[in-house]
Amino acid sequence: MSSEPRAGAVEKQTGRLESFSDGVFAVAITLLVFNLTVPVPRLLAGGISVSTLGSALFNLWPSYLTFVTSFATILIMWASHHGIFKLVYKADTPFLFANGLLLLLVTVVPFPTSLVTQYLLTSAAPLACAIYAGVFVVINVAYNLLWWTAIRERRLLHPAVTDRQVKRLTRHILLGLPVYLLATVLAFWNAYVSLGLCSCLWIFWAFTFYERSPSPRPLTAGQEVETAPESDA
Amino acid sequence: MSSEPRAGAVEKQTGRLESFSDGVFAVAITLLVFNLTVPVPRLLAGGISVSTLGSALFNLWPSYLTFVTSFATILIMWASHHGIFKLVYKADTPFLFANGLLLLLVTVVPFPTSLVTQYLLTSAAPLACAIYAGVFVVINVAYNLLWWTAIRERRLLHPAVTDRQVKRLTRHILLGLPVYLLATVLAFWNAYVSLGLCSCLWIFWAFTFYERSPSPRPLTAGQEVETAPESDA
Amino acid sequence: MSSEPRAGAVEKQTGRLESFSDGVFAVAITLLVFNLTVPVPRLLAGGISVSTLGSALFNLWPSYLTFVTSFATILIMWASHHGIFKLVYKADTPFLFANGLLLLLVTVVPFPTSLVTQYLLTSAAPLACAIYAGVFVVINVAYNLLWWTAIRERRLLHPAVTDRQVKRLTRHILLGLPVYLLATVLAFWNAYVSLGLCSCLWIFWAFTFYERSPSPRPLTAGQEVETAPESDA
Amino acid sequence: MSSEPRAGAVEKQTGRLESFSDGVFAVAITLLVFNLTVPVPRLLAGGISVSTLGSALFNLWPSYLTFVTSFATILIMWASHHGIFKLVYKADTPFLFANGLLLLLVTVVPFPTSLVTQYLLTSAAPLACAIYAGVFVVINVAYNLLWWTAIRERRLLHPAVTDRQVKRLTRHILLGLPVYLLATVLAFWNAYVSLGLCSCLWIFWAFTFYERSPSPRPLTAGQEVETAPESDA
Repeated sequence: MSSEPRAGAVEKQTGRLESFSDGVFAVAITLLVFNLTVPVPRLLAGGISVSTLGSALFNLWPSYLTFVTSFATILIMWASHHGIFKLVYKADTPFLFANGLLLLLVTVVPFPTSLVTQYLLTSAAPLACAIYAGVFVVINVAYNLLWWTAIRERRLLHPAVTDRQVKRLTRHILLGLPVYLLATVLAFWNAYVSLGLCSCLWIFWAFTFYERSPSPRPLTAGQEVETAPESDA
Repeated sequence: MSSEPRAGAVEKQTGRLESFSDGVFAVAITLLVFNLTVPVPRLLAGGISVSTLGSALFNLWPSYLTFVTSFATILIMWASHHGIFKLVYKADTPFLFANGLLLLLVTVVPFPTSLVTQYLLTSAAPLACAIYAGVFVVINVAYNLLWWTAIRERRLLHPAVTDRQVKRLTRHILLGLPVYLLATVLAFWNAYVSLGLCSCLWIFWAFTFYERSPSPRPLTAGQEVETAPESDA
Repeated sequence: MSSEPRAGAVEKQTGRLESFSDGVFAVAITLLVFNLTVPVPRLLAGGISVSTLGSALFNLWPSYLTFVTSFATILIMWASHHGIFKLVYKADTPFLFANGLLLLLVTVVPFPTSLVTQYLLTSAAPLACAIYAGVFVVINVAYNLLWWTAIRERRLLHPAVTDRQVKRLTRHILLGLPVYLLATVLAFWNAYVSLGLCSCLWIFWAFTFYERSPSPRPLTAGQEVETAPESDA
Repeated sequence: MSSEPRAGAVEKQTGRLESFSDGVFAVAITLLVFNLTVPVPRLLAGGISVSTLGSALFNLWPSYLTFVTSFATILIMWASHHGIFKLVYKADTPFLFANGLLLLLVTVVPFPTSLVTQYLLTSAAPLACAIYAGVFVVINVAYNLLWWTAIRERRLLHPAVTDRQVKRLTRHILLGLPVYLLATVLAFWNAYVSLGLCSCLWIFWAFTFYERSPSPRPLTAGQEVETAPESDA
């Protein structure tokens, strides 16, 4: 009988917080499609034909590039959010508000995405790309804040979480900060390099994410907590 | 065997209601991003350059202010909704409709947000800000209604919920009403003061929310019900 | 050991179907807010002032009316959907497709809503209102289809569901059909009467929904299945 | 005690991944409604009346056709996604990214849908329809990739999943590839035939999906895993 309250004590209490966050991530990532706008038929240069539509669609490449970059970045963010919540089993007020700040920034992403789409081929591209990378800097800071509110005094972490797991995730979350800062600064020198850096970072991340996990027990959602006691034993 | 039906009797029966509500909150809060519109390249005063884009983006500050205010307010609403549903374990028809009214009002928020964004710098600002604050008055009334349908005769509350918890949440929900009423009235005197009050209220709320919870057991989601019996013992 | 498979056999297998449906309902109901469009400042008749904005907002009343009507109707639909899924514990292919048809129609609702908003004050109002009511006729047919795929041979129903429960829900779902049909036909005689009927039907429904449930055990989500065996005993 | 970790080992660890995916599917499918745009009153040819509105609405038939086709196709995709996740109980990094690629493509669907809607009646229809079918080709490839990451070495599959189940789903997922490829190629010969093929494929799929499941135990969500051991015994 006394074991039940204890079992209850380490039960996840963040279910609804996660489902609300998932909803915000899902809507924000899907709204990015509004970044892709179909060329208006009567505005096609040279009349409507397969070739004029083809070239009009080809000229939309900045919007495809930013769409894929923003989508992949939000996806990585969601995976990181998921990674944090795997180790957390309860929430206090600062954690709740740090999560709120993060969600605010995630919902903002379609705005700089659209900004870069519309200004990449103009002389205002440096500012657009700097803002784009700058938003990711701020988002990264928010992630560090969220993670910091979770680990201080370890009050919110699942009891089975090891120090090694905490350190690993801390490093993982800090990883993006210098790169996005660099991308922000570089934008004023060359907007394309800045955007390229943002576009590549998530690929790099995906790979480090993968290599870090030894083959029989990959670092994935839902597994960390369970494997932790075993790797200590 | 007889203990099982009883355990079932205090089981949460509001799961799908919560997940639907979470969905509505998540979509409504994410749609606020449409309040941020990228300046149209060919309409930039003085041609397209880093400085003209910069000043055009700077001039969008009313939309940033209303975006953050509305986002934070919906977030606090979600937290309050979460707080109410933590104590409730079943739903009857009036509760269902009170929740529906609340959701209707939450989905409306992007409308007054956009109204203030477009009229804050015009002579129609008082009306726009009064409507903005007025919507929050009505939302607050809807919260009180929802909470009232939950606590009358205590039929819908989890059996372990204490009177102190009920009183605390009642006070918490009533808190916003006079302030939003004040903001509504003040709008006709000074629109900026009214908007400022709405922008600050959620910060104030976040802090009272926080201070109210003594350090080892913060007032958070998922913990109320469990701690209640202990604090009585 | 043999009791476990049986317990598993009556376990809900429709979890993800419900959460997907909830998502669609939540997005569709929230998108209705796009029906409310802020008057464009430079198009205000008589310049920008509190009174011109006030009258412009007042003139938007058709959009408020259709917004509230569509919102309330989708909400009632969601409650009915919830009511059906409370009694269903597994899904087969026809049920899956009937549910898909229903979701398609639910996502369509913003379209006729916007149609009525834009044409209510014009001479094309009869057609707009007929289409509006007509969509609800088709949705009602889809509900009956969904329910029929669920109850034929009772294969998909939870074993504890009684015949009385099935009959009651059958009646409840059929209720709207004649009224919406009437509203569709009446639209060509008087668009306002048709729209008024649609606006009132959900109020009427909310009340019948309520009165049908005796006080200690209201007819609500999550309770039907549990109370059924007791009311038979 | 030793049975508990094992029980834990076959527990679904993909809950949040599924709920996030459900959210993306639900938002993407609901955003298709933006494909339906109400005719602007002042642009109606011949003034505003029941008959001019009627013919304007009739002329929107390409948007109805593409809306229904895209909706049904995303719905089938969701059902397939659901079918895959029924057999999978944990996720590794490649699986996570394959799922991310799939979600990216699902959110893209509103774009080619709108493209076909606007160009079906123009001379650029072949390109629009080829892109439409082409997107479904790529989505199908992404499905095969997702399924392939799930089944290689069977690491991610539930232990009770049989080889027959794997083969059946493999065939089911491959089914669409040649047809969508054909539709892509045919588009340059006749856009209507291509679109018709896309519109019919989901109907065909729904039926094969159905016939494949013998009557007492239909092939549906949540049942596969449970029935597998029994059909082997």
